[in-house]
Amino acid sequence: MITVAVDCMGGDVGPAATLPACAAFLASHPQARLLLVGKPEDFAPWPGVLGDARCRVIAASEVVAMDDPVEVALRRKKDSSMRVAIQQVKEGAAQAVVSAGNTGALMAIARYVLKTLDGIDRPAIASQLPNARGGATTVLDLGANVDCTAEHLLQFAVMGSALVVAITGRPEPTVGLLNVGGEIIKGSEIIKKTGVLLRNAANTGDLNFFGNVEGNDIFKGTTDIVVCDGFVGNVALKASEGVATMLAGFIKVEFSRNWLTKLAAICAYPVLSAFKKRADYRRYNGAALLGLRGLVFKSHGSADAFAFEQALCRAYDAAHNNLLDNVRERIAHAAPLIAAGSVSGEFKSISIS
Amino acid sequence: MITVAVDCMGGDVGPAATLPACAAFLASHPQARLLLVGKPEDFAPWPGVLGDARCRVIAASEVVAMDDPVEVALRRKKDSSMRVAIQQVKEGAAQAVVSAGNTGALMAIARYVLKTLDGIDRPAIASQLPNARGGATTVLDLGANVDCTAEHLLQFAVMGSALVVAITGRPEPTVGLLNVGGEIIKGSEIIKKTGVLLRNAANTGDLNFFGNVEGNDIFKGTTDIVVCDGFVGNVALKASEGVATMLAGFIKVEFSRNWLTKLAAICAYPVLSAFKKRADYRRYNGAALLGLRGLVFKSHGSADAFAFEQALCRAYDAAHNNLLDNVRERIAHAAPLIAAGSVSGEFKSISIS
Repeated sequence: MITVAVDCMGGDVGPAATLPACAAFLASHPQARLLLVGKPEDFAPWPGVLGDARCRVIAASEVVAMDDPVEVALRRKKDSSMRVAIQQVKEGAAQAVVSAGNTGALMAIARYVLKTLDGIDRPAIASQLPNARGGATTVLDLGANVDCTAEHLLQFAVMGSALVVAITGRPEPTVGLLNVGGEIIKGSEIIKKTGVLLRNAANTGDLNFFGNVEGNDIFKGTTDIVVCDGFVGNVALKASEGVATMLAGFIKVEFSRNWLTKLAAICAYPVLSAFKKRADYRRYNGAALLGLRGLVFKSHGSADAFAFEQALCRAYDAAHNNLLDNVRERIAHAAPLIAAGSVSGEFKSISIS
Repeated sequence: MITVAVDCMGGDVGPAATLPACAAFLASHPQARLLLVGKPEDFAPWPGVLGDARCRVIAASEVVAMDDPVEVALRRKKDSSMRVAIQQVKEGAAQAVVSAGNTGALMAIARYVLKTLDGIDRPAIASQLPNARGGATTVLDLGANVDCTAEHLLQFAVMGSALVVAITGRPEPTVGLLNVGGEIIKGSEIIKKTGVLLRNAANTGDLNFFGNVEGNDIFKGTTDIVVCDGFVGNVALKASEGVATMLAGFIKVEFSRNWLTKLAAICAYPVLSAFKKRADYRRYNGAALLGLRGLVFKSHGSADAFAFEQALCRAYDAAHNNLLDNVRERIAHAAPLIAAGSVSGEFKSISIS
């Protein structure tokens, strides 16, 4: 059995998304248990989930709001559903935790409660984005760290490799360094230094380094993993979502123009549905917070029940495939390469939802 | 009359794209003249353009290759079509120049031949991207500068404003600072400092600062202008192109699946064509190299005749609307805000095509 702790109060929707997601998740995962953390009085409209023998409710009296500053979430709301859920992992009552709450708060509380793994200076947020090959590209960091050193980016590359191995079983996933051109001489000083570190790591067998990739390679599926700092990753992620939303809007407008185009929409309905399903970002919901002494997954704040269910599946798979041990072992192996001493600067966390 | 110098040899396609584009451009612009720069022997297949009284061929014996290092283009190919075309602007024979060649080489040669405007440390590459409002968002820098200071970003904001005023006639275009969240406290130290400078510039009436924007705001059309460093801008641009290409591929696959879906494609053909036209990136081809003492426009390297024609139109409009004077005046007005003294670091140029 694998137990996942769920922050049922997090996100824009709260229990109305998280509890139906839990019900659907349990139905498809007979080996799973859930710890439902939050305000029990808010769970009442979903008696089906509460009555499931594989669920247990854990009361928490506070909720981290989506716009709570990190300090408030961390220092003043010590009985928040987010914190209590993370605590379950710390205490060994759960193997993973999922929350759709405020990313900055989630990262800060997870860091505080669980601590980082040996050899890791900063946790990173990793998510899968769909690619043209029909698979998914794992991108990190997506927003935990706005300023990164080359050593941080190397750590991200190693952790991202562990994630892909654990989730897909592919033995030597390829790593691309996000840059503005393929040549070694391209990019800022930090990026060029990162290139050197990643090439060294490839020589020692710590990762399978492909070389530089560009923004479009994320969606081409050129490499299994794309590494970047949290500022660049966050902008790339949101710009991509922006384009997809704009294009979907254009399609809608063109098919709604008049009765003839509406008729065309009816003819094309099965195809448009298949396309919509394929391009559905919700399928990729569930970002891993890597580098902590426990498995923490972040759902998009605006996730509906279907999207939140995907995040639960991701957390379950990660626990099932021993992601944590995988990351730990790979980081330990790469430790000689990671000059932890060169790390400076305060921890900064930003929202991806 | 406005004269545009054309590097007919640049780009992946060369004269087979540039010369048909010139013909189409002349047909729709009765007040335009063109200087066709390149190897006259390569122009022979397009006698129509060559015979036009508003065209003049200027011979250049060399061509900058798409993969030529900047040093080679700048120091060893002194009679390249690119350089000779830029020279026409320097000498006053043309009011603008268009090239689809190597971005790094174009920027370096343009900088060397034309020099930067007073008050500008580094030129920037600005392009328009389509947005959900049916208009376009001007984004800069898209790749000329991988490392930028806050002062550089302020200069970009002022130049971007001048570009939008000159092209659209809109009096006070809004400027957004690309960041990872809306709040003032978000982002790296440089971005936070840029926020301060942009707010100051808004107070002195130098620009209409909206505040922070995120990646998706580019395509929402939240602001007229989005300012970022060249690394982030380049990644955002290419990631966006990657998503659009992937989604177009998905649509194609779904409509080609079987005879039923192919029938649906026929029914939906007019709608899909309208959508394709609307989402056509080629319509937005033609990036401005801002901050030089002359108007230089960069076409995408892979541009076909239609796309290259758009870049010619953009250069013509910029010259027609006195973009250069507009930039010069705005920069002079904002000069007290721009602490040129704090600028450091070498010039770096990267490719956007």
